[in-house]
Amino acid sequence: MKIEPIRWRSDNLELLDQRYLPNRIKYVTCKNATDVRLAIKRMVVRGAPAIGIAGAYGLYLGMRDSRAGDFSTFKKGLARTGNYLKASRPTAKNLSWAIDRVITLVESSRARPVEAIKGLMLRESAVIMKEDIRACRDIGKAGSVLIKEGSTIITHCNAGGLATGGYGTALGVIFSARSKVKQIYVDETRPVLQGARLTVLELKSAGMPVTLICDNMSAALMEKKEVNAVIVGADRIAANGDVANKIGTYNLAVLAAYHKVPFYVAAPLSTFDLSTSKGADIVIEERSADEVRKISGNLITLPNTKVWNPAFDITPAKFITAIITEKGVMKKPDREKVAKMVGKAHSA
Amino acid sequence: MKIEPIRWRSDNLELLDQRYLPNRIKYVTCKNATDVRLAIKRMVVRGAPAIGIAGAYGLYLGMRDSRAGDFSTFKKGLARTGNYLKASRPTAKNLSWAIDRVITLVESSRARPVEAIKGLMLRESAVIMKEDIRACRDIGKAGSVLIKEGSTIITHCNAGGLATGGYGTALGVIFSARSKVKQIYVDETRPVLQGARLTVLELKSAGMPVTLICDNMSAALMEKKEVNAVIVGADRIAANGDVANKIGTYNLAVLAAYHKVPFYVAAPLSTFDLSTSKGADIVIEERSADEVRKISGNLITLPNTKVWNPAFDITPAKFITAIITEKGVMKKPDREKVAKMVGKAHSA
Repeated sequence: MKIEPIRWRSDNLELLDQRYLPNRIKYVTCKNATDVRLAIKRMVVRGAPAIGIAGAYGLYLGMRDSRAGDFSTFKKGLARTGNYLKASRPTAKNLSWAIDRVITLVESSRARPVEAIKGLMLRESAVIMKEDIRACRDIGKAGSVLIKEGSTIITHCNAGGLATGGYGTALGVIFSARSKVKQIYVDETRPVLQGARLTVLELKSAGMPVTLICDNMSAALMEKKEVNAVIVGADRIAANGDVANKIGTYNLAVLAAYHKVPFYVAAPLSTFDLSTSKGADIVIEERSADEVRKISGNLITLPNTKVWNPAFDITPAKFITAIITEKGVMKKPDREKVAKMVGKAHSA
Repeated sequence: MKIEPIRWRSDNLELLDQRYLPNRIKYVTCKNATDVRLAIKRMVVRGAPAIGIAGAYGLYLGMRDSRAGDFSTFKKGLARTGNYLKASRPTAKNLSWAIDRVITLVESSRARPVEAIKGLMLRESAVIMKEDIRACRDIGKAGSVLIKEGSTIITHCNAGGLATGGYGTALGVIFSARSKVKQIYVDETRPVLQGARLTVLELKSAGMPVTLICDNMSAALMEKKEVNAVIVGADRIAANGDVANKIGTYNLAVLAAYHKVPFYVAAPLSTFDLSTSKGADIVIEERSADEVRKISGNLITLPNTKVWNPAFDITPAKFITAIITEKGVMKKPDREKVAKMVGKAHSA
């Protein structure tokens, strides 16, 4: 199975509807910014890098029918559409990163006719996707050296091809280290079950040895069986190296630290947010109660049960053995190392 | 709603089918040992103390039609039926405890006619249930003093009225401390969702403030909001104070220790197993893969996905702030304290 979460077809954006995986392959066609915003909100597309790519295309789709005759009118619409899209999921940094990247390109092209600028926006969205896939490959290669021969690995949520342009971040490392991986334990990742639905699909499709567990089994697993590494993705990484990622990541990090299991975060530089000083400053999206109350549409509790449903949690840098980016491995991440690796790349 | 998980009606055992809660109130009628064994295996009845009570009744049901004319023939059948029932769920100590208690009574009554012995067995089963409810009340009272005014508490799985003769162990403490409890966060407790289905039902029925969370949210909760205690039940407690309880308990214990949240285990003395030296010696039941693969009958992953599904995990005594029994509070449990509290009671 070829994983193609995002594709451009017949002048529209097509998103693989990840809510129906692994049972059904169904694409949602997005013709405008509203379609893209809804697709992100409803998790048709998810995973920070994938959301970023979809956001860039969404900005183009939102502006392609713009009748603005002059640049300043166009730019106003651009800012409005950008903010509209950014608000769809507040935590994933890659979304605002990609939108801002396109806006910056537009601004640097202000001398051009509006129609030409639209073309540049579409082309830039494709470039962002292509670069993301390349970054995933580089992350995989960089991270692979951290994986020991015969490793048993735990991963959480889905940081694979489906969460990115393709190939994946955490799963990119696992794919790259393929011959050294003995077993991958996948957290099912409640409430949306991205591990059970998506990561299992990707790893099985790749012919890799995968075992599904419930999220609450990881400590017992670390205690009973030799676990050599935990590898996860990230939705936003603060300037001090604190990581926002799918709810349950912090659980896993504390448990890994106690059991002396190396804890790795794999993410492209577009996930770093140097303007956010530390994890506690990251906005954590809280999602609907029914996401917890219902599974596959069926209630698992009483209908009006109060729920706390944060979509992400914060893992402090001190729990992270290394962050793996397309620029290499940053062991024991801290403010200085983040500034060095990311600042240099961002200013390059 | 009156919680009545186990009742004796029209000469049969009726078990509230907990698999259908909270949606349906349906009783399963058990007329023989096979019915009881299946009900325990399939988790119609669950929770160590409740399983113990059901097991005692099951032993009676298995023997009431015995045509043994002499005691020694009866005793052979008794041992066979006892072992048959004990094997239904290997981890819960209360099951073998209750069965052995009835067998001991039978042996001490060997001089009586077989039919009279059968009557004693039925009466003893009712006594075990009555004593369990009383033990829960005493556990509640003893544990209540540990709960601070305005407490926020996390509980895992269901250690309530449904898991016992009535009232509950961990929930017994919460009910007893009612006026001091501000909020109870309930882990949904995958894979069987006893938290979402049963504990939410019990706490809401009692009018208590309850919030449902996924199992992987507990660390974020401890980090973000003030959590004053974690209280759970137990399926077996080893002689050194190590506790076997529903999978995910050990996760929670490590997280509580890191976040300096007191971690309490509430259980009757019938849960202690002095013949098991330490937690590592406790047999952990592994249940079917489909329990994880399916929720409410719907697949949440690919059909043949390999699964690791231990029903329980072991929490070492060092993580336990106190074990609460009907005899009082045992702070920092260890081999000596367990021997003192349990040995005395068992020999009393």
